[in-house]
Amino acid sequence: MKNTYRSIFVWGDKHEENLGKGVIELVKEKFGYTNEDFQQQYMFGDKEVILEKPCSFPEKIIDQFVEISGKENVEKSDYARASHAMGYFFAELLLLRKGAINTPPDLVIYPKNEDEISKILQLCNRENIAITPMGGRSSVTRGLETSKGGISLDLTRHFDNILEINEINQAVKVEPGVYGPVLEKYLNAHSFTCGHFPQSFEYSTVGGWVAARGAGQESTHYGKIDDMVLALKVISPAGIIETKDYPANAQGWDLNKTFIGSEGSLGIITQITLKIRKYRPENTAYSSFVFKNFESATTCMRKTMQEGFGTPALFRISDPEETATAFKIKGFDNTFSDKILRAFGYHSGKRCLMFVTTEGDSDYTQLVKNKIRKTARAHGGFHTGGKPAKDWLKQRYNSAYMRDPLMDVGIMTDTVETAVPWDKLLPLWKAVRTYLETRDKAHVMAHISHVYENGANLYFTFLSPMKKGVELEDYTAYHKGLIDTIHQNGGSLSHHHGIGRTLAPWMEDEMGKTAMELMKASKKFLDPNGILNPGSIFGENPDE
Amino acid sequence: MKNTYRSIFVWGDKHEENLGKGVIELVKEKFGYTNEDFQQQYMFGDKEVILEKPCSFPEKIIDQFVEISGKENVEKSDYARASHAMGYFFAELLLLRKGAINTPPDLVIYPKNEDEISKILQLCNRENIAITPMGGRSSVTRGLETSKGGISLDLTRHFDNILEINEINQAVKVEPGVYGPVLEKYLNAHSFTCGHFPQSFEYSTVGGWVAARGAGQESTHYGKIDDMVLALKVISPAGIIETKDYPANAQGWDLNKTFIGSEGSLGIITQITLKIRKYRPENTAYSSFVFKNFESATTCMRKTMQEGFGTPALFRISDPEETATAFKIKGFDNTFSDKILRAFGYHSGKRCLMFVTTEGDSDYTQLVKNKIRKTARAHGGFHTGGKPAKDWLKQRYNSAYMRDPLMDVGIMTDTVETAVPWDKLLPLWKAVRTYLETRDKAHVMAHISHVYENGANLYFTFLSPMKKGVELEDYTAYHKGLIDTIHQNGGSLSHHHGIGRTLAPWMEDEMGKTAMELMKASKKFLDPNGILNPGSIFGENPDE
Repeated sequence: MKNTYRSIFVWGDKHEENLGKGVIELVKEKFGYTNEDFQQQYMFGDKEVILEKPCSFPEKIIDQFVEISGKENVEKSDYARASHAMGYFFAELLLLRKGAINTPPDLVIYPKNEDEISKILQLCNRENIAITPMGGRSSVTRGLETSKGGISLDLTRHFDNILEINEINQAVKVEPGVYGPVLEKYLNAHSFTCGHFPQSFEYSTVGGWVAARGAGQESTHYGKIDDMVLALKVISPAGIIETKDYPANAQGWDLNKTFIGSEGSLGIITQITLKIRKYRPENTAYSSFVFKNFESATTCMRKTMQEGFGTPALFRISDPEETATAFKIKGFDNTFSDKILRAFGYHSGKRCLMFVTTEGDSDYTQLVKNKIRKTARAHGGFHTGGKPAKDWLKQRYNSAYMRDPLMDVGIMTDTVETAVPWDKLLPLWKAVRTYLETRDKAHVMAHISHVYENGANLYFTFLSPMKKGVELEDYTAYHKGLIDTIHQNGGSLSHHHGIGRTLAPWMEDEMGKTAMELMKASKKFLDPNGILNPGSIFGENPDE
Repeated sequence: MKNTYRSIFVWGDKHEENLGKGVIELVKEKFGYTNEDFQQQYMFGDKEVILEKPCSFPEKIIDQFVEISGKENVEKSDYARASHAMGYFFAELLLLRKGAINTPPDLVIYPKNEDEISKILQLCNRENIAITPMGGRSSVTRGLETSKGGISLDLTRHFDNILEINEINQAVKVEPGVYGPVLEKYLNAHSFTCGHFPQSFEYSTVGGWVAARGAGQESTHYGKIDDMVLALKVISPAGIIETKDYPANAQGWDLNKTFIGSEGSLGIITQITLKIRKYRPENTAYSSFVFKNFESATTCMRKTMQEGFGTPALFRISDPEETATAFKIKGFDNTFSDKILRAFGYHSGKRCLMFVTTEGDSDYTQLVKNKIRKTARAHGGFHTGGKPAKDWLKQRYNSAYMRDPLMDVGIMTDTVETAVPWDKLLPLWKAVRTYLETRDKAHVMAHISHVYENGANLYFTFLSPMKKGVELEDYTAYHKGLIDTIHQNGGSLSHHHGIGRTLAPWMEDEMGKTAMELMKASKKFLDPNGILNPGSIFGENPDE
């Protein structure tokens, strides 16, 4: 698979997953697939990468970058440029499968230190060269697409150091290119945890978490990355900004919060100080429940968050269709357990699965667990033991691996997510379901996985056979209607994926003109020539 | 007391407190005061307000403001202007006592609605008139001083409405001029609480809490105001910005956080949506402890926050001198209880008092209470029952009333606060104490009252006889050295009082040049002519 497009877009460390029996059955049943259909290698992308577009820089510019970072840290091969041209958004995967990399970066640079980053930025600024910082590249928003070519600044080679752990302050200072598992292993060895476990955990970096304002699967307890950052160092064309690790302060407004979610548009994050928590997996308490319907499950979630008895760590409910899908894939249907559930009125197509863990001090985890069990019972939740939650955690990062084999057999699959206050949650969920199901042969699943006192996220997954020959146009139209539906029903454009080029067109309507102009004023000051990740958040032509 | 300077600066609803017996004894002992000294009415400020400086606006400008807000809502009397010229910072109180109001506003306007605010802003912008939004006026940072005259925009007359409570979302939408007790009473009647109880609670407004990025006495559980704001509406010369009440989001960066702490420099906040929590005072658990020294008390605090068993609501420790002062004032010394404490090694001059409450679900409050008792015991904490904490809460807002009678007898008294990571807390505490005690006849007290996993605040109170005739110069020099000491020892310029004109001179050194310029770029966009509260945060001449 060396040097193929496929080697770029396949998720994970180059190992591939096959579709399980349950998924194959689902696809057959839902989309009328035959065994033959599963043999296809649809837009398999197994050709060697050859870019039409060469590096557009004159030699003397390249020489200057080489002088800054050294020959071994400046790459211009087709493969290096292709593998830094975009992230893992469905539409990007389509392009990679087609070998249609239209705007590769001109160079990939792996800076060794902050001084080099400053120099690279100054050179880019002088020469009007776009520059996009890159971490694990797991963006699903076209947030990393080098839409104006230029430099892909890859921070994973040299900016991957854990700089300092402070056990008294419960804080760790890291560079942006540290991958999730590296950080977590280091912290665990010191009896701490970061508590941030996004779906992309294995292949995403701390810098990406911060830049895209991400959330982990246990954010209900540990917070979003917004809540974990104590201090940042950022290099921009206008200079260096370095905040301090105060636990709180009131010296003007909170500048950390200007860079968290800035998606590379304001500067290159070079240092991040994060809160850390005690690592005590032996204290984790696991529960799972089945509810009779989505309404009662969401009410249980809301009450849990509002009662003031502490917070669960993992806290998820699947809507009826996602629950039915999970049960089908697990081979649960028509088992004895299934019959019991149905006998008690927990019917397929209505029932909903909830997973809960609680973490922290052992008495606290037991208290919160017991409180949640009581709350669940009050809302008709049937306790199904700790094992399903434990099992879910064992495969917590797996669903990202499903996309490739599904696309290999011509199935469109994507996820879209939002956050809403409680009073808009059910109407939005229904509206989005209704919209997505207007499409012929669409399989739609939803869950809630980040829960707050004042509302929750909603996370939609959809599968549908691609329209061959017009895959991208078909997807784009479907996706647009989906975002419109979320937007019109009072959902945020994103809860934790970020904006990127995909959602930038909705930003002005969502934020309002003055808010967008205020954000652009910050960008204009830090990045007067608009070289930093142009296109993300503000769209391709923000000044038009 | 009608129309005197005194009626402006006396704290509270025009009722005055006398010094208690314990305080009088302390002042006698510490400062060598005699009974006669307590008879003085030092710079009593009981003259009628007469301003040297008339309203500088031409009639036609005044007419335009009158046309916008109505004659009854535009005031230009000396008294109205004097009572809107500044806040409650010690140096401001000195000026008011002296009748030295050098930069009163030209007009006081009480806008009735957002449309009027927009029109007033446009007029001010056109005519280059400074405008300072005013709430409860409890600023202790010169944050409200109308240093360039202009308009004081008083939001307490008409912008004092509670707009909407949403019990499902646990949120309340209010106007900025709502006073703490009004909001809390309303919420309690609906079985909710705001959880925000600053020292100034009785006479401060929600708008002020947000603008100055304040914290309440129970912030350890409920968070700072930063953590409570779900959405804001802000009117600036550049337009209106209105954020939405998402529980979280990732659509670019968090603009709420640009306005929280902006101290009126970016726009007029007209609507605020806050989180609210269930009101269950019957569940509150109270504890108090005495520790052998400050070190063990702070370690107990840190462990409490880092163990992951939940958080206390009120969580305070007084340092040895503040503890000794409290005991002296209470008449505790040489009582039987005192003797017991001393017999067990809890000696005056070293021992420290801790107050704790826990709030929320009743099982949770009991769990957290028990955990804290255990943690305290492990660090030598002597449990002294719930009553001292209950008693403290009964007088929780009282210390603000002490300043006037102390100043009446010629005593300088002020408070300064900071936040630090844990590893810098004790060195900073010692350095500030050492500095403050270089002054002859200084009584210095400190406490920690806002506690985090990663650090805590430190709050210093100092008393010292004023130097007659040079009160302001003396204070200013002493205060400057104090802030320098905090700054050099790694403390934030403020944890919750804000910056104002008092701390603005330190901002660039603290934040760095690029950070300050970034903040100014936001201001420049929203307020191109620099009319909004000029002087606060950025200093009087930010562009020099």
